[in-house]
Amino acid sequence: MNLVYLDNNATTKVDSSVLSAMMPFFEENYGNPSSIYEFSRSASRAIQNARGQMKDFFNAEDEKNIIFTGGGSESANLAIRGVLNMNKDKRHVITTKVEHPCVLNLYKQLEKEGYKVDYIGVNSNGDLDLEELDALVNYDTALVSVMFANNETGVIFPIEKIVEIVKSKNKETKVFVDAVQAAGKIDINVQELGVDLLGVSGHKFHAPKGIGALYVNPKTLITPLIIGGHQERGKRAGTENVPYIVGMGVAAGLAKDGLQYEATEVKRLRDKLETNLLKNIYNARLNTGVTNRVPNTTNIGFEYIEGELILLHLSDVGICASSGSACTSGALEPSHVLRALNVPFTAIHGSIRFSLSKYTTEKEIDYVIEKMPPIIDKLIGISPYQDELAAIKELKI
Amino acid sequence: MNLVYLDNNATTKVDSSVLSAMMPFFEENYGNPSSIYEFSRSASRAIQNARGQMKDFFNAEDEKNIIFTGGGSESANLAIRGVLNMNKDKRHVITTKVEHPCVLNLYKQLEKEGYKVDYIGVNSNGDLDLEELDALVNYDTALVSVMFANNETGVIFPIEKIVEIVKSKNKETKVFVDAVQAAGKIDINVQELGVDLLGVSGHKFHAPKGIGALYVNPKTLITPLIIGGHQERGKRAGTENVPYIVGMGVAAGLAKDGLQYEATEVKRLRDKLETNLLKNIYNARLNTGVTNRVPNTTNIGFEYIEGELILLHLSDVGICASSGSACTSGALEPSHVLRALNVPFTAIHGSIRFSLSKYTTEKEIDYVIEKMPPIIDKLIGISPYQDELAAIKELKI
Repeated sequence: MNLVYLDNNATTKVDSSVLSAMMPFFEENYGNPSSIYEFSRSASRAIQNARGQMKDFFNAEDEKNIIFTGGGSESANLAIRGVLNMNKDKRHVITTKVEHPCVLNLYKQLEKEGYKVDYIGVNSNGDLDLEELDALVNYDTALVSVMFANNETGVIFPIEKIVEIVKSKNKETKVFVDAVQAAGKIDINVQELGVDLLGVSGHKFHAPKGIGALYVNPKTLITPLIIGGHQERGKRAGTENVPYIVGMGVAAGLAKDGLQYEATEVKRLRDKLETNLLKNIYNARLNTGVTNRVPNTTNIGFEYIEGELILLHLSDVGICASSGSACTSGALEPSHVLRALNVPFTAIHGSIRFSLSKYTTEKEIDYVIEKMPPIIDKLIGISPYQDELAAIKELKI
Repeated sequence: MNLVYLDNNATTKVDSSVLSAMMPFFEENYGNPSSIYEFSRSASRAIQNARGQMKDFFNAEDEKNIIFTGGGSESANLAIRGVLNMNKDKRHVITTKVEHPCVLNLYKQLEKEGYKVDYIGVNSNGDLDLEELDALVNYDTALVSVMFANNETGVIFPIEKIVEIVKSKNKETKVFVDAVQAAGKIDINVQELGVDLLGVSGHKFHAPKGIGALYVNPKTLITPLIIGGHQERGKRAGTENVPYIVGMGVAAGLAKDGLQYEATEVKRLRDKLETNLLKNIYNARLNTGVTNRVPNTTNIGFEYIEGELILLHLSDVGICASSGSACTSGALEPSHVLRALNVPFTAIHGSIRFSLSKYTTEKEIDYVIEKMPPIIDKLIGISPYQDELAAIKELKI
């Protein structure tokens, strides 16, 4: 049995050409990029090249605006702490109710440190309440931090519009975009979006785990999170992870080139999966609107049954999917994202996220479409909510 | 011409068995270790295994006391900030004048934030002034931070003795040891040393750049630097860099097994190089004492000539060495470490660090012994200090 990996929002397979590009920097060109002798030049040149690839990926003004980090979490921590440390007189931050748990935990910490943090809500399609945002930005707002695409639902936030609203209320307020789930799925153009900071994580677009990047526009000053050497123009100390930086550069190029494929073929397969599950399984409901989503993600609730049980049954037949972010796996608390969307409690617990990639095949999607109904049937059979299930079955038919 | 790489304190070649161990985690077992399905188990098991290897490497009490980080700088920042954030009422920190520039930059920042930082000096052998340390520890001292072995000179500090002094003055004071340059060169035994925190960087012992570890003993509480997911028991958020964690675990095992070889064969080659250069080159002087050093490092001053010129000439004949830490390469300021050792100004500028590894061969050392004298002769010829050079030549003969 082959593995059907539909959890690409959790992490992705490293692309073989990404790996090939990395290989020379382990045993051959292993020099420290900061050293002055000829041998280390290929490492420093390779970093420079990758910085150019990331600049293109973001459509940034300049390579200097790219900081390599150890991943998406570090990018977010660097951006958020960096902006707040540079604006110590301002104590107000705005974010959303559906951010990644990583970012939300940081905000909880900021609240403990005396920051006022407002969390904007979403409607049942997952769309952000822009009027709420407009009403909240004030003279004291140091930072607005919003994700580009949601990890659980795939819903895309209107970043350009958000920036416009924020800057019209307070042009000093900085906007940070957590683009971890957008990278490789939709186009990122920091200049068009008008964002001040934007972070990505390599392992979400076929680079390895443990590498990320942060775009910081030329008007935005930040303090470093890791203080020490001169690397990354003093914004991130530590000997550069040359192989992964090279790998992420290649992955970014491939991702940019692959956006058309994502928007058409990956989307077609995602839609096929979604349509068939919704059609063939009577207690299935789509947890979001159908538009404004990244092409690879669908989040479907199976009412009155347990998501963890669905996942284990899927795992038994070689299908990898998830019930939320990997970071919160094992947590019994229901998804904060689906709660914010007002998904009925009876569906939240049975919600499954399928996230595809460029490696997903039609055969794999057909396999999932075939395997899901009997699994759900079996779990419906052992559900304690037989009356409720009968009622929704009647409604559906 | 083959490369003679004698800059292993800057970075090292990745061991081929380290690389082999990493390879399955890029394209095959690429699952997110936090995911619940069977496919991701091999990644989480591999991390667990590597944590055990790091526990053994440090001789730590428990695997739980190991935190994987993105490198030595992050380990130091996490340790230092982590302890200070947990002891906000205490505002005094003690370190040494010869710490790595990375750590010193962090202390400069702490001073700006209102901390009192004392910098202990060393004698001309590079040995720490323990009486000064004893006199400085007080009720307000939150942290004493000392390196295990110096990156430029290789001088080893007496950690066990340091801990004893610190704890006898204030048992609440935490001791952090930057063991980046000790790892793989001498034994590390955190329980015997009695340290509270100890950090290492994988790329100094044949793992890749971009991975590190921090040991934190069970009695020491720290705040995370990167806040977010539950990874590393909440002390370091972000999807784990599975390949590098696996690689560093293997590298740690190899390093531990190789300590005897370091202490004998690597030391023999280092001593051969050192003895011959000091014997054959009249303006050469050893910048440290001969004992109390890691086996792979020698730091030699060539009086009245320019170190950068020596390095360029060495690079031309395929020899990689350095004049100080790679992080400060290109800086015109003379080494703060050699200044602290009271190395004459006339020798600091012409000081070269050679740092060997298990890959260094006798043939390579013979090659350097052969190539150095004519290079130095040539540079002596263009030195503006002919009278001074004549004087020391007379003295030596």
